[in-house]
Amino acid sequence: MSGGGPGRRVTLAHVAERAGVSRSAVSFVLSGRTDQRLSEETSARVRRAAEELGYRPNAAARTLRTGRSGTVALVSDFVASTSHANSMVRGALEALRDEGSLLFTVDTQGDPGLEAQVVENLLSRSVDGVLYASMFTRSITVPAALQRVPYVLLNCVPGPGVAARAVVPDEEAAGRAAGEHLLDLGHRDGVWFVGAFRPGFTGGAAWHGWSPLALTERLRGLEAALDSVGATLAGRVPIDADWDPHDGRAAVAGLLASGVRPRALVCANDAVAAGAYQALRRAGLDVPADVSVVGFDGSAISRALDPPLTSVALPQAELGRLAAQLLLGDPTGPPGPPTTADVRRVPMPLVLGESTAPPP
Amino acid sequence: MSGGGPGRRVTLAHVAERAGVSRSAVSFVLSGRTDQRLSEETSARVRRAAEELGYRPNAAARTLRTGRSGTVALVSDFVASTSHANSMVRGALEALRDEGSLLFTVDTQGDPGLEAQVVENLLSRSVDGVLYASMFTRSITVPAALQRVPYVLLNCVPGPGVAARAVVPDEEAAGRAAGEHLLDLGHRDGVWFVGAFRPGFTGGAAWHGWSPLALTERLRGLEAALDSVGATLAGRVPIDADWDPHDGRAAVAGLLASGVRPRALVCANDAVAAGAYQALRRAGLDVPADVSVVGFDGSAISRALDPPLTSVALPQAELGRLAAQLLLGDPTGPPGPPTTADVRRVPMPLVLGESTAPPP
Repeated sequence: MSGGGPGRRVTLAHVAERAGVSRSAVSFVLSGRTDQRLSEETSARVRRAAEELGYRPNAAARTLRTGRSGTVALVSDFVASTSHANSMVRGALEALRDEGSLLFTVDTQGDPGLEAQVVENLLSRSVDGVLYASMFTRSITVPAALQRVPYVLLNCVPGPGVAARAVVPDEEAAGRAAGEHLLDLGHRDGVWFVGAFRPGFTGGAAWHGWSPLALTERLRGLEAALDSVGATLAGRVPIDADWDPHDGRAAVAGLLASGVRPRALVCANDAVAAGAYQALRRAGLDVPADVSVVGFDGSAISRALDPPLTSVALPQAELGRLAAQLLLGDPTGPPGPPTTADVRRVPMPLVLGESTAPPP
Repeated sequence: MSGGGPGRRVTLAHVAERAGVSRSAVSFVLSGRTDQRLSEETSARVRRAAEELGYRPNAAARTLRTGRSGTVALVSDFVASTSHANSMVRGALEALRDEGSLLFTVDTQGDPGLEAQVVENLLSRSVDGVLYASMFTRSITVPAALQRVPYVLLNCVPGPGVAARAVVPDEEAAGRAAGEHLLDLGHRDGVWFVGAFRPGFTGGAAWHGWSPLALTERLRGLEAALDSVGATLAGRVPIDADWDPHDGRAAVAGLLASGVRPRALVCANDAVAAGAYQALRRAGLDVPADVSVVGFDGSAISRALDPPLTSVALPQAELGRLAAQLLLGDPTGPPGPPTTADVRRVPMPLVLGESTAPPP
């Protein structure tokens, strides 16, 4: 798969828009297929639009020419079968579709044996490349069989010394953004982090004990932001479980019962923040008048809460899109397989809700 | 793919549990593979467990014998690339895994051209069968190419007169369950449905204008429950949009502003219920002391709300599991392809939160 040139790449979507037809119609015409009953006039219009825009032969056309399959597989632990990271699939799907490639998704439920079986199966079916994805950000061991095909790591990073391309959210910058937002509002004291792990604990049972990098990096960024103005995190409230509303509620209820009166809670994710809301309300504390709350993920929960939650959002579609583009060919990097770890960090936007205010 | 006999089917998981090894290990041993470095003692233990339990050769072994690929594809509009129905994938994946089959997932974003391309691609790769799925429950046109391979419709039903197997949630019974729950608490008056479509409106822009069967069936079931005791729905609050918290809040705020004081709100889904909470709170009304609220879907939002929402849950994992089992071979039905529409309706459980109470 080749990369585009410098500047804006002309995609299938641009040709479709100019010709006034669907992307599928463009793909059919430009790949030389004749079984779709498109009129000669339509076909001519598509070819003219492609020429005028300078559209270059895409993966679908290349498939005919080179014998490539025009398919990419997204192999993950739980991405397709749980509802945490599906927009990564959407982003990758859309980027590949613009190039005329299909995306197959296979979940392995984190089982190395099943994963080996899946990768062998895919290689025997001539996929052009693999996006190897994790539901949450973590360090992974690249399966040996993947070395036989182009691949990009999506939402995970290779172990030390492994040469691979990877795309992850910039979690540390996200933690800094949360801290700077609170500092801008005037918070310097009474800022707590809710959802830290106790030493030695490495992740909830549901996730095979994998330790999420997001946690340590979000916390590190938050502390760096506070430190830069001479402030200090008031404390960390541990949660040794799976970061759900029930856990968040118990953790914050425990903090309040110990006599602490926080001014701001930075929660490990939106679900923990939902639990924090519940504990604060039961204690007669108002969000945000008495206590500001910030979450991470920008999930559907953040918009369902009352008041809507300010949350640093996971850029899932952008992660998927960038990983697919790197797999298809990176126009900004050297050709061929990477010779060192090449980890791209995608910014996480702070999405303002109504859950933060100046300290009382 | 053959079905099991009557009674409880012995699965790969049972053998794995008895032998104290992973399911993958069982699959490797029983399919005759020798490339996984399992000890002879382990292999013998697996074979003994299979024999003692009466485990019958599974799909993986059949693949070796019959040349079948041991793979099934789940082709859908948006199931893998959005976070609404992912547990269907999990249910199907687990059921297939028990039989030694892999599951590939492909989303088409609802584009018929892309769908035709996907199905052709899959058939050229010798998948053993297709689960054809929709993100939300609707009536679909079965793609012509699907007739060349075994398939089961998942979360959608065939058009009139089409002979196909299908698995959907029992939405009408879910509506009845919501109504009966409120009747049990003593509600007879002031029960409103929030999220009906105005006549002629057929679904939000994000979903291609497809009309969700869930809406009409949930409403029909609710009205039937009320009617059975001589009560009547007080009214329907329309939402001509995509059923999110913002829409729900505006709809309920409008209802309250018109002077209506409802006793109970049955909301089209959990996200609409989240918006109802916001509108009620702003009007100084307490959930559930002043107004009871019931949602549908049993999503993560239902558990994040305060108080937790009583919701009739989509049985997604069960839908996926049943569809996969029907594809592998239905032990309770006739052999061969269906000769009529065979639609299985899976019960939707009422999950109690703390959002309903007797009328004030």
